[in-house]
Amino acid sequence: MRNHGLVVSLDAMGGDHAPHSVLDGAAIALKENSRLRFRIYGDEAEVLPLLEANPKLAAASDFIHTPDKIASEEKPSVALRKGKNSSMQRAINAVKDGDADCVISSGNTGALMAMSKLSLRMLPGIQRPAIANLFPTRRGHCVLLDMGANIECNATHLFQFAVMGEAFARAVLGIDRPSVGLLNVGSEDMKGHEHVRAAAQMIKEAPIDINFYGFVEGDDICGGTVDVVVTDGFTGNITIKTAEGMARMLAHDLRKAFKGSFLAQLGYLLMMPAIRPLKNKLNPQRYNGAMFLGLNGIAVKSHGSAEAESFANAIRVGVNIVQHGLNEKILEELDTSGAYNPTSDEKVVGEIA
Amino acid sequence: MRNHGLVVSLDAMGGDHAPHSVLDGAAIALKENSRLRFRIYGDEAEVLPLLEANPKLAAASDFIHTPDKIASEEKPSVALRKGKNSSMQRAINAVKDGDADCVISSGNTGALMAMSKLSLRMLPGIQRPAIANLFPTRRGHCVLLDMGANIECNATHLFQFAVMGEAFARAVLGIDRPSVGLLNVGSEDMKGHEHVRAAAQMIKEAPIDINFYGFVEGDDICGGTVDVVVTDGFTGNITIKTAEGMARMLAHDLRKAFKGSFLAQLGYLLMMPAIRPLKNKLNPQRYNGAMFLGLNGIAVKSHGSAEAESFANAIRVGVNIVQHGLNEKILEELDTSGAYNPTSDEKVVGEIA
Repeated sequence: MRNHGLVVSLDAMGGDHAPHSVLDGAAIALKENSRLRFRIYGDEAEVLPLLEANPKLAAASDFIHTPDKIASEEKPSVALRKGKNSSMQRAINAVKDGDADCVISSGNTGALMAMSKLSLRMLPGIQRPAIANLFPTRRGHCVLLDMGANIECNATHLFQFAVMGEAFARAVLGIDRPSVGLLNVGSEDMKGHEHVRAAAQMIKEAPIDINFYGFVEGDDICGGTVDVVVTDGFTGNITIKTAEGMARMLAHDLRKAFKGSFLAQLGYLLMMPAIRPLKNKLNPQRYNGAMFLGLNGIAVKSHGSAEAESFANAIRVGVNIVQHGLNEKILEELDTSGAYNPTSDEKVVGEIA
Repeated sequence: MRNHGLVVSLDAMGGDHAPHSVLDGAAIALKENSRLRFRIYGDEAEVLPLLEANPKLAAASDFIHTPDKIASEEKPSVALRKGKNSSMQRAINAVKDGDADCVISSGNTGALMAMSKLSLRMLPGIQRPAIANLFPTRRGHCVLLDMGANIECNATHLFQFAVMGEAFARAVLGIDRPSVGLLNVGSEDMKGHEHVRAAAQMIKEAPIDINFYGFVEGDDICGGTVDVVVTDGFTGNITIKTAEGMARMLAHDLRKAFKGSFLAQLGYLLMMPAIRPLKNKLNPQRYNGAMFLGLNGIAVKSHGSAEAESFANAIRVGVNIVQHGLNEKILEELDTSGAYNPTSDEKVVGEIA
């Protein structure tokens, strides 16, 4: 593992709480790891005063003024065309040009993916990058991908997501032989979309050592049945948001119940220490930092609503991926599997969510 | 509303706890509504002793011996071919032949849907039946469809699901102008699969009075944004199971937290009255009874693991649908919308989950 002079490129203008959240997040990450260095891209009028107020962070950072920023509702195609001098594009370029090891942004997901794809390009052999997230389970957490980069997927894409997700769980999470499941509507061979069944066949037949569980269903995600859950970006995006919505509803209803009566409030106070670990487990801040897998460079998407603590976590995710040499491991795996030269010519319409 | 001599046909052999759960469930439903009558299909050696032990239920029921039963893992195609004398098929036939108003089964979903489709046929103009479920939200509950009857859907199917779901929310749930949303990965017009966008267009342009909200995302389901959430059976099945898995994980973790220490246990006891409504809200028994919408006859799928109380709820769902004349309302709506003669010739591969 290397950790010498690792450089993180930051889009200081992306997200609801930028640039404060970005600079404060960087300061938190720096406190934990004093060897980090930052390249900070943003508007000097907004960013410089904040940077000057934190001499330690300033000493560890290069600041680059960028006149433009990508709006959160901007279409990716427009962002690509007009965003050449945006903080987002310039922060990505730092990775492309070898000036930084990874880039972190809380900005527009579609624009970040489109720009990263075009600037960093794909890992050789990878047809589509995927967005991967950690998600809480009964046993701890699992990796879910794709969370919305690819609305339409064919069997080869799902196969490559499985390879990338497995490499991530092994390299970055340190799981010895991560189990991999394909999300489906049943566990039997004949269930689900044809391309999902074809992907299962490809994984089984590939000359690689993947601990393939087979099909998993929706309740297997939180059930912790497997370490890596693979699906297309449409299903993945809706699934993860539905589960988050369920967790939020329950938290809301519990809070209401706790406030309901004097006895309930007293009960809540007594239980608080026992409930705290659960609250932590579900804290979205802990899971902030979606990985773009399959790019020839490391890019991490922080949630648009991320605040400092949460943004610091996205930085940790990026640093972790770099330190563990994830891309090298994905390439090794793909090389072995022969997936460098996929022969599939299935028609697929690509989109960015 | 009619309620005179309403006859419910029961597959007494379907589900993990059959026939006990079915007969005990029928007894519970009968206690609430003494005008119900049952036609009970099953193996006489297993069912008759139970029926004879409950004279009130026996007096309200006709029992019909059926030699075969459909196994829970049977393929729908095999069930159709070999199940002519099964309790499931005969119970469905009772609705087809006009001997019963609705049929309830806890058996194999795929087989029940295939048999119902073939025996009852579709409502005129409906291309595909859908499975609809109630789901808890912040505001109460919403209707979700399709929950797994149709893995691949085109725009016309989604449009018809919207019409059927809206009619259900209006007729059976009594909501005045139910709002309808199409599940997607974003709220903007350009997001998601082409057929989802095309369905939105169809709903907007149809000459019917639908309170169409537009696209909704995963977290809008529990958020209670709309009364009816429409999606394809692949996404719907995975989504609902993922949310259930999340709720189960949280309940499991909370139970563990409550048992953690003496203080936590005491706190739990104090809070119990406040937590009870939440527990009830999430109780899957309350939501048992998935509606098959779009068939020319009422069929309700009870969960395979349903016990008596839960099965009684599935009976209530069936009775409710009959009493509110749901199918007549769907037909009116379709007639107005001109969806009787859909011109779509999109290629779609049909499957039953």
